[in-house]
Amino acid sequence: MRIEIWSDVVCPWCYIGKRRLETALDRFGHREDVEVVFHSFQLDPAAPRVPEESVAQSLGSKYGGGPEAGRVMIERVEAVAAEEGLLFRLGEAQRVNTVDAHRLLHLALTDGGPVLQSALKEELLAAYFLQAENVADHDLLRRTADRAGLDAGRVDRVLASDEYADAVEHDIREAASLGATGVPFFVIDRKYGVSGAQPVETFLQVLEQAWSDAQPVLQHVGHRHSDEACGPDGCAI
Amino acid sequence: MRIEIWSDVVCPWCYIGKRRLETALDRFGHREDVEVVFHSFQLDPAAPRVPEESVAQSLGSKYGGGPEAGRVMIERVEAVAAEEGLLFRLGEAQRVNTVDAHRLLHLALTDGGPVLQSALKEELLAAYFLQAENVADHDLLRRTADRAGLDAGRVDRVLASDEYADAVEHDIREAASLGATGVPFFVIDRKYGVSGAQPVETFLQVLEQAWSDAQPVLQHVGHRHSDEACGPDGCAI
Repeated sequence: MRIEIWSDVVCPWCYIGKRRLETALDRFGHREDVEVVFHSFQLDPAAPRVPEESVAQSLGSKYGGGPEAGRVMIERVEAVAAEEGLLFRLGEAQRVNTVDAHRLLHLALTDGGPVLQSALKEELLAAYFLQAENVADHDLLRRTADRAGLDAGRVDRVLASDEYADAVEHDIREAASLGATGVPFFVIDRKYGVSGAQPVETFLQVLEQAWSDAQPVLQHVGHRHSDEACGPDGCAI
Repeated sequence: MRIEIWSDVVCPWCYIGKRRLETALDRFGHREDVEVVFHSFQLDPAAPRVPEESVAQSLGSKYGGGPEAGRVMIERVEAVAAEEGLLFRLGEAQRVNTVDAHRLLHLALTDGGPVLQSALKEELLAAYFLQAENVADHDLLRRTADRAGLDAGRVDRVLASDEYADAVEHDIREAASLGATGVPFFVIDRKYGVSGAQPVETFLQVLEQAWSDAQPVLQHVGHRHSDEACGPDGCAI
């Protein structure tokens, strides 16, 4: 089975949804037969590389009420994250661009497969949400990629170029074509789509359903014992 | 799409069912995307290579009533065959073994793929049902294989050995494991099983269903617009 996840590095529900999916996978009986791949999604492509405002300021000006209202929204999501064991420092986080982080996630998938990509994804989310780091900063990206196990030379070359920028764009277009209206967006075996950080139980149900679909159980069509057939006792003639 | 057909060379409903499936495939909009493969099934593994009795005699002694009762049964199936444009001469046909014919069908699939195998299958059925030939006879098998386009040297080597006998056995065991109680038995994409010479309409319906199943249409699970997601207008926090 293959789970594809469209998500952004600065999307709080993506991190929370990732944890809930992981909890569901831990309870799922066929975890070793599941491959997880991350696709790019940019919630805020206009966000700058060099931070200009905090997430609280950005939310406050977007929805009104100023930084104080932004902090109230943040506290709400931090409370849900805490239930999944994630101690967010979103109050300290900055509004930043994620295209370079996504390009490195593509590099990780190409060079090391889903395992390396997952390691980098977790490091990037932790850097942003738990450490309030700037995930647009190239030095931070280099250190994070190094911790995840990426090759430093390859990381430097990707960051110095626009390598994988087209792959990021392709992912974003594909999310739209699959009917995603936001992230996280989970696709199982290109058959089931799950929008948002759904409860663990929902993930578990769709995993079980997809697993059962993938088993070769033959559906018998028409009369099981046809009048117009031949068997060990001769032909129906 | 892949259609697998378990059938025997001396099975009247297999030939009739083959024609009905072919009619359905002619009406099906995606014929060029369908591959048809034949698997072996032996209705009467104890039948001799050298004929000892006619099909009419064999039926008559099996079901009682003698050759005359056997001929009545044959007339019944010949009438159905005629509706599919098949002019059976089953009254002249002999009870014979089909293992060698099946071994050549495996050779055809291995050496020339589904197209060569289909050509040989049609030639064998026509030889038995339309010409009342002995499809256990090696000379007849050589001529039939030659007409279908098989390599004469390979045919000789297979007939002189027991090559593909294990493949024939494997096919028969697999039919049982898939729940077949007789032949013809049609399996579409290892998902749908059709027993017997079902009507053209039934074949067409299952072809359409299997085709629609194979299209990547995503089923959205849970709330399409989750409360716990981030979108272009920001996160639900």
